Order: sequence, then C-alpha cells, then structure tokens
Amino acid sequence: MNDERDEQKVSEFAEYDLLARFRERIGAPVEGEVWSGDDAAVVAAGADQILFTTDSMVEKVDFDFAYCDPADVGFKAVAINVSDIAAMGGTPGAAVATLQLDPNTPVSVVDGLLDGMLEASQRWSVRIVGGDLSRAPALSIGIALLGVPPESGVVTRGGARAGDAIGITGTPGLSGLGLALLKAEGRSARDRPEARAHLRPEARPAEGAALARAGATAMIDVSDGVAIDLYRLCRASDTGCNVRVGDLEAPKEAVLLGGEDFELLFTIPSESFATARAAVQELGTNCTQIGEVTDSGMMVDGESLESWKDKAWDHLRNQ
Amino acid sequence: MNDERDEQKVSEFAEYDLLARFRERIGAPVEGEVWSGDDAAVVAAGADQILFTTDSMVEKVDFDFAYCDPADVGFKAVAINVSDIAAMGGTPGAAVATLQLDPNTPVSVVDGLLDGMLEASQRWSVRIVGGDLSRAPALSIGIALLGVPPESGVVTRGGARAGDAIGITGTPGLSGLGLALLKAEGRSARDRPEARAHLRPEARPAEGAALARAGATAMIDVSDGVAIDLYRLCRASDTGCNVRVGDLEAPKEAVLLGGEDFELLFTIPSESFATARAAVQELGTNCTQIGEVTDSGMMVDGESLESWKDKAWDHLRNQ
Repeated sequence: MNDERDEQKVSEFAEYDLLARFRERIGAPVEGEVWSGDDAAVVAAGADQILFTTDSMVEKVDFDFAYCDPADVGFKAVAINVSDIAAMGGTPGAAVATLQLDPNTPVSVVDGLLDGMLEASQRWSVRIVGGDLSRAPALSIGIALLGVPPESGVVTRGGARAGDAIGITGTPGLSGLGLALLKAEGRSARDRPEARAHLRPEARPAEGAALARAGATAMIDVSDGVAIDLYRLCRASDTGCNVRVGDLEAPKEAVLLGGEDFELLFTIPSESFATARAAVQELGTNCTQIGEVTDSGMMVDGESLESWKDKAWDHLRNQ
Repeated sequence: MNDERDEQKVSEFAEYDLLARFRERIGAPVEGEVWSGDDAAVVAAGADQILFTTDSMVEKVDFDFAYCDPADVGFKAVAINVSDIAAMGGTPGAAVATLQLDPNTPVSVVDGLLDGMLEASQRWSVRIVGGDLSRAPALSIGIALLGVPPESGVVTRGGARAGDAIGITGTPGLSGLGLALLKAEGRSARDRPEARAHLRPEARPAEGAALARAGATAMIDVSDGVAIDLYRLCRASDTGCNVRVGDLEAPKEAVLLGGEDFELLFTIPSESFATARAAVQELGTNCTQIGEVTDSGMMVDGESLESWKDKAWDHLRNQ
C-alpha cells in the first residue's frame, strides 16, 4: 500500500471512471450473458436467463430527510431497481434488501422505509424475499432485484441502428425540477407534481415490456438526465443521434441535465414507432418521438450532445 | 412521525428482533418459495428454482483496517455470501456488488477490495456480473449472490428429525479466537492460523453440496457461534438436541460463542453420517459428529443450550 497510487483518492475519480475500472477487473462476460455496463446484467439460471441488478441510496448523498419521508426513500429504492429491469424490457421479480442503520435511528424511520418498500413492491409485483441489517454510521438502503427477460429477448443499450426513431416515455425533466424545488422550499413543496416526480418516481416495467414487444432495438432508463443517458446509448450502439428536446413539456436544461426521471429512452425502427407509442399510451403514459439515430455525430437541437453531456457531469458533481 | 414509537431507537432492538419485524412485514412466501429466515431465499425463476442471498460488511462494525487488508475484506464479503448458499446445499453463481466509499478512500484500497473479491470469486466460481458505487460516510461492501439448488432439493434449517446425527465441518471456534488475537496483537498476528480463519474464512459450498447429496435433513452456516446457530436450527425444526463440544479442537467457549466460522452445522439420519463424513473428508475438510437431534430440550455438555445462546447474544452485543 505504499506505491504512489496510494495518494490517489476516490474523489478524483468520477463514479463513471471507477465503474469502468471495476468493469475492466471483472472481465468479459461468459457467452450468453451481459455483465456490468447495461441497466441490468443478464445471467444464465438453469435453462433460462434472468436479469439481475442492484442500486442503493445513501442518506445525505442520495436523499435528505429535510424534505423526504422515510416511506419516500423506501419506495424510491425499489423503484430505481425496477426501472433498471424495465430498461431491459423485463418484468421485476424477487428482491433482497440491505438496510444500514445508525443505532440512533428511530424505529419509526425503519417502519417508514419498510412501508415505502412494500408499497413499491406491491405496485410492481416485486417479492422482497430476504435482507440484511447492519449497523453503520449513516442510513442507507440497497436493493438487489431479479427480473424475467422479455420473450422477444432483452433490449440492451447497444442495438440502435441508423434510421431508428428515438422515443421517450413520460415527462423527462420533472424530477430534476422537483429536486431544485425541494431544496429551495423544503417540505412545503412536497405536493407539487415536480416534487412528486422526484420523491415517488414511476418506474416503467409495463411500458418497457410493451416497447420490447413492439420491437425496440435499444433502451436505457434516464437516471442521469437525457444528455448523459442518450450519450451512453449512442456509445453502446456505436451510432450518432439527432434529437430535439425544445418542444417537450419541461425546459430543455431540465430534460438534458436533470437526473432521476426513470423514464425510458428507446430506439425502434421508425415504421414501428406509432405502434410502440400506442402501446405505451394504452398504459396511461406519454410517449414522444424526439429524434432519429444517425450513423455518427450526436446532436441535440443543433448543438453538440457531448458538450451537454459534459455539462451534465459537472452538474451532477456539484449537486 | 410523532407517535411514541418515535422515541424508540434501533439500538434498543437486537438485529434479530429487527429482522423478525422485517420478516413479519414482508409476509408469508408464495407457494414453493422460502423467504427470509433461512440462510438464503429460494425463489422461482422460470421453471427452475434459484437461491438468492445478500450480506454486507461495514468498516469499524464488521472489520477494521487496523488488522485487515482491503483484500481480506473483499475476500470475506464474497465468502460470507457463498457460505449462505453452501448452507442450502447450493452452488454459487452470479453476484452483484455494492461498494460505498468515503471520497477520501485511497484508490489503492478500492483495488485491494476488488483483488479480494475476485480471488474469492475465482475460488468458488462466482461470477461478479455488476455493481453499484456510492459515496458514503463509511466504507461498506455488500454482495448479493445467486445459487443453484442441489438436485436433491434445498436443505433448509427446518428439516431435522429426532434421532438424526448432528455434525459440523472444519474447526469451529478458530475465527473467534483469531479476532481476539488480532484485536490484542494487531497486524503481527495476521499469519497465525486462528487469524487466517478470521480474515480469510473458508466457505464450504462443495461440502454443502456433498452433504445435501448424502441426505442432510437440515443445515445452517455458523456465523454467530454454534450456540446461536444450533439454537436456530432446532427452533426452525421444532426439535431439541443433545451435543458435546468439549472434545473439539477449539475451547468450548470459542466454539459456542465465537462467530464467523462459516462452517456447516448439519443434521442427517444417523445411518448416513459415515457416508457424509467420508464425502466431506474427501474434500480435505474435517467432519465431526457432535451429537443427536432429540424431541425436545436443547442440551450442550449437560448444560442448557439456551443459556449459552443468551450468553452468545451478550457477547455479540459487546463486541
């Protein structure tokens, strides 16, 4: 532990770089599996394939009880994992939970976390089958979730083809606006629609399954804003894009930079887009075409998507 | 959040009580599944069943860099989950990892954690397929692991029958002795066999699978000492026991109270014990009969197992 790397701290690495380091170390997936680098992993389970993902939330980093209730946190911890399964076109199934609790945590907070976890679990037919409790200096909640892949095969981030339509569900950008409102106005803003989108995000597994059935070629959930997540999809697919977000309901900055929308960003052959949109709308969810996949060059409203992506990273780092 | 329970803190609950509360809230398992309360959950995955477990380690709670290397921690985080799968008779498979890191953590520590995780993964054929990184005030590492059940069916904690032999693998008690040594003497004790047992525990999936094949009726891994874990097995099976631990290699107190051995404690029809022992010994691991399952009453060396179990809880709380 005395080499010069010892001087290098985690803080100098963006999460993305550390994840890339992690990915390099775990190596290439065995045949027929998809490992780190997509929304969820795809692994063999007997004769079948299963989806497997994990995501956690840490107090003061990912949420603040200044404006969240414990039930919001429990709900969202399940929702963000359901969203990862949804982004593969899958159906969520069994989950295990990890609660790390400061010994001074009131038991009512634990009950609230469980209330929210169970509410989200019921909403999306997740079965919480086990868990682990630990003492820790800060409260955190982690979920590991299994899912069943769609019959038509998993939809990765890497299948977009030039000419495909690019679509998005719901109203991207609301959650980021909600976070800003909650930070500025505190709990009094909790009932505003933007704040609800941040506190109680809607995962979209039914929409994801419908998009897989309709022939979606690539899909990702919008966790870090459209700029970063569209960039990821294009990079994974080795394509470009030409999108317009100026006409969406939320302001352009919120759409591109605001995170935690958990809407589904997808690509699909343009002739299939109308069918896909109808299937999503039938579930009560908006679905909007925002552009097309191109061979190369990533453009948003005539500007470089990459520069918006860099701006988004700065925004995330300073949040 | 203003009711009187708000005054009640997590610290007043033993982990066991909080887990019981959690278990009550998640409800009864769907048919054909086993949820919280055994070493691993059993869940349906397509036509097959799959084992699913999670366990995490928190700095200063579960380990201390005063005497552990980061690679020890990474290794053990995988081992403790493999042990849960082993205790069902299963074979470990895909895993996802959660790393929570203080931004001041040297990158060399992260590399060490990964080194240990990958070493343990290779040892027990675990595939780390994904993960999640978070900032947090303290370092913690969590693993969620899938496993394939044995063909003869999972071995739960609840299948012991009066008259069965009670056996245990390896040398229970070493790890607790090792922890005491490390706390007293620091890193200079690292190479002592007891310290190795604590820092680099051997999970026993091959032994667990062999015991399942040989007809084990119940099994649990010894994570909290033989007193607590034998009590759990008897409670789950609704049986008593009569065991003798005075002749084992480690002192009686270490066997009964020392945790984190990750040896397998099992029951099996007495006529099958010799076969089971031979199968375990063929893997290079000791296997000792320590007693018999009885209809009721839990006895160890002529004393009440329950009073040893209560002593073990006090020991854990004061560690």
